[in-house]
Amino acid sequence: MPLIVPSLEFFRLKTRAEVLSLYSRFAPVGVEELELLEAGARVLARDLAAPEEVPGFHRASMDGFAVRAADSFGATPGLPQYLEIRGEVPMGQAPAGEVGPGEAWRIATGGMLPRGADAVVMVEFTNEMPDGTLEVRRPVAPGENVLHPGEDVKAGEVLFPAGKRLRPQDLGLLAALGVSRVQVLRRPRVAVLSSGDEIVPLTEKPAIGRVRDANAFLVAAQVRENGGLPRLMGIVPDDYAALKAVLAESLKEADLILISGGSSVGARDLTLKAMQDLPQAEILVHGVAIRPGKPTILADIDGKPLLGLPGHPASAAVVMQVLGRPLLERLAGETEHAAPWGGTVQAHLSRNLAGATGREDFVRVRLRLDHGMLWADPVLGPSGLLSPLVKSEGLVIIPLGVEGLFREEPVTVQLF
Amino acid sequence: MPLIVPSLEFFRLKTRAEVLSLYSRFAPVGVEELELLEAGARVLARDLAAPEEVPGFHRASMDGFAVRAADSFGATPGLPQYLEIRGEVPMGQAPAGEVGPGEAWRIATGGMLPRGADAVVMVEFTNEMPDGTLEVRRPVAPGENVLHPGEDVKAGEVLFPAGKRLRPQDLGLLAALGVSRVQVLRRPRVAVLSSGDEIVPLTEKPAIGRVRDANAFLVAAQVRENGGLPRLMGIVPDDYAALKAVLAESLKEADLILISGGSSVGARDLTLKAMQDLPQAEILVHGVAIRPGKPTILADIDGKPLLGLPGHPASAAVVMQVLGRPLLERLAGETEHAAPWGGTVQAHLSRNLAGATGREDFVRVRLRLDHGMLWADPVLGPSGLLSPLVKSEGLVIIPLGVEGLFREEPVTVQLF
Repeated sequence: MPLIVPSLEFFRLKTRAEVLSLYSRFAPVGVEELELLEAGARVLARDLAAPEEVPGFHRASMDGFAVRAADSFGATPGLPQYLEIRGEVPMGQAPAGEVGPGEAWRIATGGMLPRGADAVVMVEFTNEMPDGTLEVRRPVAPGENVLHPGEDVKAGEVLFPAGKRLRPQDLGLLAALGVSRVQVLRRPRVAVLSSGDEIVPLTEKPAIGRVRDANAFLVAAQVRENGGLPRLMGIVPDDYAALKAVLAESLKEADLILISGGSSVGARDLTLKAMQDLPQAEILVHGVAIRPGKPTILADIDGKPLLGLPGHPASAAVVMQVLGRPLLERLAGETEHAAPWGGTVQAHLSRNLAGATGREDFVRVRLRLDHGMLWADPVLGPSGLLSPLVKSEGLVIIPLGVEGLFREEPVTVQLF
Repeated sequence: MPLIVPSLEFFRLKTRAEVLSLYSRFAPVGVEELELLEAGARVLARDLAAPEEVPGFHRASMDGFAVRAADSFGATPGLPQYLEIRGEVPMGQAPAGEVGPGEAWRIATGGMLPRGADAVVMVEFTNEMPDGTLEVRRPVAPGENVLHPGEDVKAGEVLFPAGKRLRPQDLGLLAALGVSRVQVLRRPRVAVLSSGDEIVPLTEKPAIGRVRDANAFLVAAQVRENGGLPRLMGIVPDDYAALKAVLAESLKEADLILISGGSSVGARDLTLKAMQDLPQAEILVHGVAIRPGKPTILADIDGKPLLGLPGHPASAAVVMQVLGRPLLERLAGETEHAAPWGGTVQAHLSRNLAGATGREDFVRVRLRLDHGMLWADPVLGPSGLLSPLVKSEGLVIIPLGVEGLFREEPVTVQLF
């Protein structure tokens, strides 16, 4: 039954690090310009410098009175200083006047400091006398309770480097600077295919011996979660011509092809052959030293990446998490990667775990808090099953060359 | 300048827990039915039970040969058992025949086990002889390398409770079960308003004394990140009638109103008065014992929540994180909350930190990995500034009643 694929022999299992290092050959997708609000969670295409300074003027950061700080020196509750209230700063306008020696102007948070004044006394430390005199019970230092021009951002300062994914606070800062449109990388378009004679569409009642296409939905949802635009290309039978045709069709629009292969060796070999015969195709990886996920394929088809995922849903999910996601980030141009501690938690393993010889082992775990201690309970089961994956919250890695992990050992859990 | 708002006196600062406990009075938003692929990251409206079992038949989980396990007993590399290869299971079809004693059928992963067989011998442990005889070098137990009907999911089993947010693997399982449409809660519609005479729209060059509307973008992006649908309602001046009109208008469509108030006491009091005078309005909270974020308001306007955020962007961001997000989750019907360890990391504080008397203190921190140890560096600065927020990766809480935290103390960082 297995086809003869001569190049097969030239491949040995690659480590995860080796696969990741190959991603640099794929170029990030193109650039688009978006309204600021639409740019949330998108990746900057170019360094972004501040077009102006923020704040643009001296602003009060507290409700109170604008004064000359020196006039408040030495003030105590027992021996207050007395100033004359001479004006009030209107919100959103430049004050029409100057604070002279011995004078105070009423000012609200965000108000513009009048000329002459160099500090704001908080209202809590003052008392207004019926004759318009202000009692100041505490001294302020020059500059106190005042935001200075450029204190938040200096004009010309590089705010964000290209490759940075914008967070809500980043949008806030850009809005403050009047940046209403930003150039970001567009979302990678991802063709999602499933292959296998035994696979039927979601809406079909499978005949005996057949199963519904679970992988396409699992994979497409992961693509979307990681910022890609999935397009379901349907199910391809284990047929060389059909596979080649749908791969060629997918390449027209997609930036990345994800095909979850037939689960049998024969079906996988057929898929590999169809890939190899596409124009400008190069198989880069055929087999990765991870468990689950060994039968993973990476190809470069005329500059576009194709990731062949294992047929077992649980294996496909793990490969998407550990290899698919970094590939999507690469295409999305994300170079300021999420910090390594993001998306992970520390826990203790609740039982001994044996590793897979010669492979990095990804073990599904469920997290459980017990007396203030976080435990990772391995959820075992064949990778043909979906429910163990559904019951898990993340993955624990048993590194290459490690025989296993012991009960109570601290582990890092990569959350789904 | 301050208006007299009599009810003000009746309010004392509420703790964060007290505010959160009030959210149960607000009803989750309505239900909609979606195609499975669109339901990713959405919240289930009802418990979901399995309409059928998965797998629906005995499936091979490995490539190899379907056999009667008993026929393999005692096989070793030195003393193999010999079986007769009598057939091959076609992918996606029921095998036309039965495995008799002493017989074997070729089968690929995912293939349907023929009658008679109760196990699969992995191809690695076999050898095909030229005469069609199979050499089996290792015994299999009954059921080995076979997925059993209902092993993944039993028919009628409750898979997911109402209130669960669907993850990619959950969609995969639903697809396997043929669930093509699901009932989910619709995304909460959120009106986002900014108030203040000093605020100008993003696209306008602010006159001296004025600033651009940073909060609306920051808040809207946070709403979107947490599954809500933000709608920018624009900037309202510090004017009672205008405020009341735009609030009334917002209530027509929105499930939640977020208004980031003027930063001055006067502006806040005006906003409070406009809220109070809406039909069926009740101010539930006016002031929260957190820093930053004290001037936060929560109101119930005819059953809909209104959250009044502080005017300072950094304060608004923190209030959105600690109070706005749980409110959005409540409206979105999410009852299976993200695990408490989700979105947090453990780190060590890099300097002493003093707390805020009588308030829970949220300190922005930047994370730094140094010799394998994760440090949280406090990013200090007045809450009127945006850049400290932009430079931070999360928040450390100094709990109520704690005077401060010491350098090197382990802390939990809630990531943005």
